[in-house]
Amino acid sequence: MNAPDKTATAANMVTIVPESEIGGLMDAASAFDAVEATFAAMARGDAYNFPVIREAIGHADALYGFKSGFDKAALALGLKSGGYWPGNEARGLTNHQSTVILFDADTGRVKALVGGNLLTALRTAAASAVSIAHLSRKDSKVLGMVGAGHQSAFQMRAACAQRDFDKVVGWNYHPEMLSRLEDTAKELGLPFEAVEREDLCAQADVIITITSSHDAQLMADWVKPGTHVACMGTDTKGKQEVDPALLARASVFTDEVAQSVTLGEAQHAVAQGLIKEADITPIGAVIEGTAKGRTSDDQVTLFDGTGVGLQDLAVAAKVVDLALKAGKAQQVPF
Amino acid sequence: MNAPDKTATAANMVTIVPESEIGGLMDAASAFDAVEATFAAMARGDAYNFPVIREAIGHADALYGFKSGFDKAALALGLKSGGYWPGNEARGLTNHQSTVILFDADTGRVKALVGGNLLTALRTAAASAVSIAHLSRKDSKVLGMVGAGHQSAFQMRAACAQRDFDKVVGWNYHPEMLSRLEDTAKELGLPFEAVEREDLCAQADVIITITSSHDAQLMADWVKPGTHVACMGTDTKGKQEVDPALLARASVFTDEVAQSVTLGEAQHAVAQGLIKEADITPIGAVIEGTAKGRTSDDQVTLFDGTGVGLQDLAVAAKVVDLALKAGKAQQVPF
Repeated sequence: MNAPDKTATAANMVTIVPESEIGGLMDAASAFDAVEATFAAMARGDAYNFPVIREAIGHADALYGFKSGFDKAALALGLKSGGYWPGNEARGLTNHQSTVILFDADTGRVKALVGGNLLTALRTAAASAVSIAHLSRKDSKVLGMVGAGHQSAFQMRAACAQRDFDKVVGWNYHPEMLSRLEDTAKELGLPFEAVEREDLCAQADVIITITSSHDAQLMADWVKPGTHVACMGTDTKGKQEVDPALLARASVFTDEVAQSVTLGEAQHAVAQGLIKEADITPIGAVIEGTAKGRTSDDQVTLFDGTGVGLQDLAVAAKVVDLALKAGKAQQVPF
Repeated sequence: MNAPDKTATAANMVTIVPESEIGGLMDAASAFDAVEATFAAMARGDAYNFPVIREAIGHADALYGFKSGFDKAALALGLKSGGYWPGNEARGLTNHQSTVILFDADTGRVKALVGGNLLTALRTAAASAVSIAHLSRKDSKVLGMVGAGHQSAFQMRAACAQRDFDKVVGWNYHPEMLSRLEDTAKELGLPFEAVEREDLCAQADVIITITSSHDAQLMADWVKPGTHVACMGTDTKGKQEVDPALLARASVFTDEVAQSVTLGEAQHAVAQGLIKEADITPIGAVIEGTAKGRTSDDQVTLFDGTGVGLQDLAVAAKVVDLALKAGKAQQVPF
């Protein structure tokens, strides 16, 4: 925040937090707090996301765009920009590239430039963890992981901080990648079992789907009563992870209803007329106590995590604070 | 970066060009070349603008948003972000604040952070100058300026580099601000005359309107045959600078047709059915030689300058080059 008279002549300082510093500064617990507060602010009407821009740029097969928003309560204003560059891996770079840019809500001047790759993984994992904290049965014991890509390890770590799981079961379309789930479970001190999908549903109390699937991977009647399912992979029209009938059976929650029904997991159930927009509850309202979450031990709850720009701003603002405190941020006159 | 091989371990470097350095690096001539090349790339289909985001954020009465795009020919990818903070002046800051962020089109990594305030003035002035270079009569002698705000001086300087004007006539809603026009004309070695609007039209061969007006300031029948009018102030629904009948009378050109008919000066003539979208020619097509510009000495030409993100990217990319050459850019590992 700038005091009115000093600012006039003082050069603006931009805080730079490079990608390489994020891992040493931010953890799953800080990401959880930031994302939970953001969802609550959205439900109170204190924070909103701007329209998403996503463009196939016609170069390097890249998808590029922005997610952006403003949180009045936290005074977090800005955007995450970047996208997907499929040729990066061959260059030794991550295909998903993103950068968060924060602005001063009082003056419009740029405030910080923050590496967004690890933050994206942490904020996405934090979203499912927030849903587990608020919607899953407290006595959940078995965590089921569907998907074993890069993001799955982050999801598992964040989930295991919320419930006292004693086992992880997992499935992946490419079984050779299951070692990631096994290694992560070991790191968390938990046994891991590779299973078929139907068995996964029979065992798991909490299921996280984190795939890039375009078809239902889990059928509605496989899921046992009382399960909490966090569908974290669907963020585009055409993607799909679970049977639309599962959304009709479950109580459905989401980060942002507008995204859920258009590009999230709920797009299919809504298109098929199985559920309506009004059937979907923003998780923020559950956090704020203005909507009910789980109301019985038999209920299936489902969280449609679509990913919103405000999550990115929240974790980036947190990391800037942490970097400044730790002396890890470079400040550049601007 | 934590990356597996040598190429990858090379840290990404972000080039920082603060607002305070722009004035010493960039001039109207460089901005002209950059903007002319951008308009041409747009007409060839090599460059396009992404949808504009513009939001009243509900804090500090601010308007915040982005203009963004990609130029395949120049490999310029990124956005200008910022907006209008009406309380800034009281803090000794510019109300319009903007920052340009450039990305590497080959990898999606952030490449540069560039102060966007002066660049916005230069690229806006360059757009009308490009229109004057390609559409006004070569023997234009009198320049008419409607509007005397901050941007008017930039407009006058850029215009006077394109034609051998021997006089400037000017009008402003608040006559006490006309000294800006007089001072700028003096700096350019030209006599200045404050006139009424009808007289301005009777004298001027080229007219630039650069106001924040919401009503027509110039009537169609005031403008003399052969005049080129550059309408540079209308960039939002509801704004207006000239009589819609003037667009019916004139050959109309623009930077981007989609913006021209929705939020540019042409919005009113189109809404009233006086002209159609197909009547508006992209200036880039004139630059490329695929569309006709001025075809007679009696023709009135009108350029609707709405302002596109690609202009911002073009001048920012240019300034990054200049800053690197001049050793004025700070490079920060990111």
